[in-house]
Amino acid sequence: MNLNKIVSPTLLLNKDICLKNIRQMSEKAKANNIIFRPHFKTHQSAAIGDWFRKFNINKITVSSVQMAEYFARNNWKDITIAFPVNIREIEGINNLAEEIQLNLTVENLDSILFLEKKLKFQVKYYIKIDAGYHRTGIDVSNYKLINQILDVSKNSSKLHFAGFLSHFGNTYNAKNKDNINQIYSESINDLNILKNNYISDYPELILSIGDTPSCSVVTDFSWADEIRPGNFVFYDLMQHYLGSCDFDKIAVCLACPIVAIHAERNEIIIHGGAIHFSKEYITIDGLKIYGQLVFLTEKGWQKPDKNYYLTKLTQEHGTIIADMDLIQKLKIGELIGIIPVHSCLTANLMRGYYITDNEWIDHISGS
Amino acid sequence: MNLNKIVSPTLLLNKDICLKNIRQMSEKAKANNIIFRPHFKTHQSAAIGDWFRKFNINKITVSSVQMAEYFARNNWKDITIAFPVNIREIEGINNLAEEIQLNLTVENLDSILFLEKKLKFQVKYYIKIDAGYHRTGIDVSNYKLINQILDVSKNSSKLHFAGFLSHFGNTYNAKNKDNINQIYSESINDLNILKNNYISDYPELILSIGDTPSCSVVTDFSWADEIRPGNFVFYDLMQHYLGSCDFDKIAVCLACPIVAIHAERNEIIIHGGAIHFSKEYITIDGLKIYGQLVFLTEKGWQKPDKNYYLTKLTQEHGTIIADMDLIQKLKIGELIGIIPVHSCLTANLMRGYYITDNEWIDHISGS
Repeated sequence: MNLNKIVSPTLLLNKDICLKNIRQMSEKAKANNIIFRPHFKTHQSAAIGDWFRKFNINKITVSSVQMAEYFARNNWKDITIAFPVNIREIEGINNLAEEIQLNLTVENLDSILFLEKKLKFQVKYYIKIDAGYHRTGIDVSNYKLINQILDVSKNSSKLHFAGFLSHFGNTYNAKNKDNINQIYSESINDLNILKNNYISDYPELILSIGDTPSCSVVTDFSWADEIRPGNFVFYDLMQHYLGSCDFDKIAVCLACPIVAIHAERNEIIIHGGAIHFSKEYITIDGLKIYGQLVFLTEKGWQKPDKNYYLTKLTQEHGTIIADMDLIQKLKIGELIGIIPVHSCLTANLMRGYYITDNEWIDHISGS
Repeated sequence: MNLNKIVSPTLLLNKDICLKNIRQMSEKAKANNIIFRPHFKTHQSAAIGDWFRKFNINKITVSSVQMAEYFARNNWKDITIAFPVNIREIEGINNLAEEIQLNLTVENLDSILFLEKKLKFQVKYYIKIDAGYHRTGIDVSNYKLINQILDVSKNSSKLHFAGFLSHFGNTYNAKNKDNINQIYSESINDLNILKNNYISDYPELILSIGDTPSCSVVTDFSWADEIRPGNFVFYDLMQHYLGSCDFDKIAVCLACPIVAIHAERNEIIIHGGAIHFSKEYITIDGLKIYGQLVFLTEKGWQKPDKNYYLTKLTQEHGTIIADMDLIQKLKIGELIGIIPVHSCLTANLMRGYYITDNEWIDHISGS
């Protein structure tokens, strides 16, 4: 990696770490004999998508019609949009359904009735189940609504029920690994009861789950049929502090130029702000943290000996709380690395990656 | 505005309101006999930039070399980069300095020494002064460092001292208009003492200031020479709750499709998340607020009778706290409007505008 080429905030991606993350998750799915359908909303990159093909991945997950269109153009033929169907986008949905195996997510009667009327091609659909996160989905015990939805597709020539899809997003509020394991167990148990009620009528139905914390921490997936983690491809500071990954599994880092050093108040100012990192934060010792400092090397970045945090962000400025030890090491114009709190949002803003072996690659928003 | 054309999250811009905001700020500057050098980091759009030309604006502010390059390509000839100079970008700086009147911002000795060595063309530079915000800048009483910087440029053929530049960003923490007025008065007073110490040596030096809260609330700018507000072009929820603007001065609104309605917990889910709004929030009654609901009309949006807020955001999902009254009014697939908390960050993410008179226009990131 030629650091001299980097003049402004740049998202570095360590390909080796990223490939290792993909391999490990892929092997975990294989060992559990379940489908691995990675979520591509984190990287949003055709080039990174291609890295998955080496592990025989051919089914993917995305979070919008726009993202499905991008990956369909890049030769992905089996795509689940894991977001409640937005019926205004029926034209895009029909175009996709004509070209690829499209799998939709339904969580209310209005949407399935609309689809039955307006779909021109066959799709599979999942019923989105709320197993405790309470963002979207039908309550896991609401058989009445589930049956109403299934009744619509029962005799449909276009809508094929694929199974139950859930996102255990409450693992992001977990305190530790035990807590993640506990949320996973309770949620998958509830889903399994649901599945057992429908398996005789729909012998091919599957349970699709898979937030990154669960997929990283849980070892036994015997009750799931498919996992859809996304963030694991890069991980980030949030996942690290949650217990999902060791620091050395984090594959992205934002290289930022130092533009000011204020020794009198122990602060370092970088070019790197809300339009690079996003304003996602975690709280450590009562302080809002937007990223953690690492030293860059020719091959990437070092695991830090001491914790220095990015604690303030405005549009283009970032403020790091330093000490004299750090201030004496750094100079105006040098580059430092910042591990982002939420790699999905940072990648979405940065719209491109500089691979630590000197290659630039794409991102949907930059294309 | 044809709402039927909108199928996914779309940033609406009311051109009439926007033009009125520009006219009012322009007239205020004229009445005070000061230079109006608007900050273009909010809209980042060549098309919106052109709207300013009707008001005889020919000097602008940006926050990065990249943004300066974009607007220079779009025929702006006098640009201030109001961000501490990033010396790694010297190549871009030299290219700009060859083509336009480029004005840089310096806040430490290392940067000015570097510029004196590496600049190939003439630039003006401001010394960035910290008048109380404590993000960047030299303390307003640190004459020693100011003199050291001026000594470097004194005999320079390329560096010309233009004056003192400051950003009173602490107005964003103000509790009310009186508080904004007070921060402004104290800060401009301190800057004026500084100016009086240098005006005999530099008779053309100016004081450049101008955060949106001050520029909106303060009426007497007699001690300033130039204002650089940016956000006023659109305003947003944060400015409204700060007291900078009435609700009807807000010129942007994100149109979002409703994808789920959960009457059992009084929640509405929209397609519209952190990658559309940003995760900037304000706190109202202890609750994090990411936006406020408005009803869309053929001509834009209505001022709300009742306050409904966007209170949770993940990558693509937004959650609105509703009541039965609201839930009975709305249907799956309908569009609602959300006034964003921070229009600069929302515009940066959305990368394009749908003008309420049916025209699409550009944004730097979309080009």
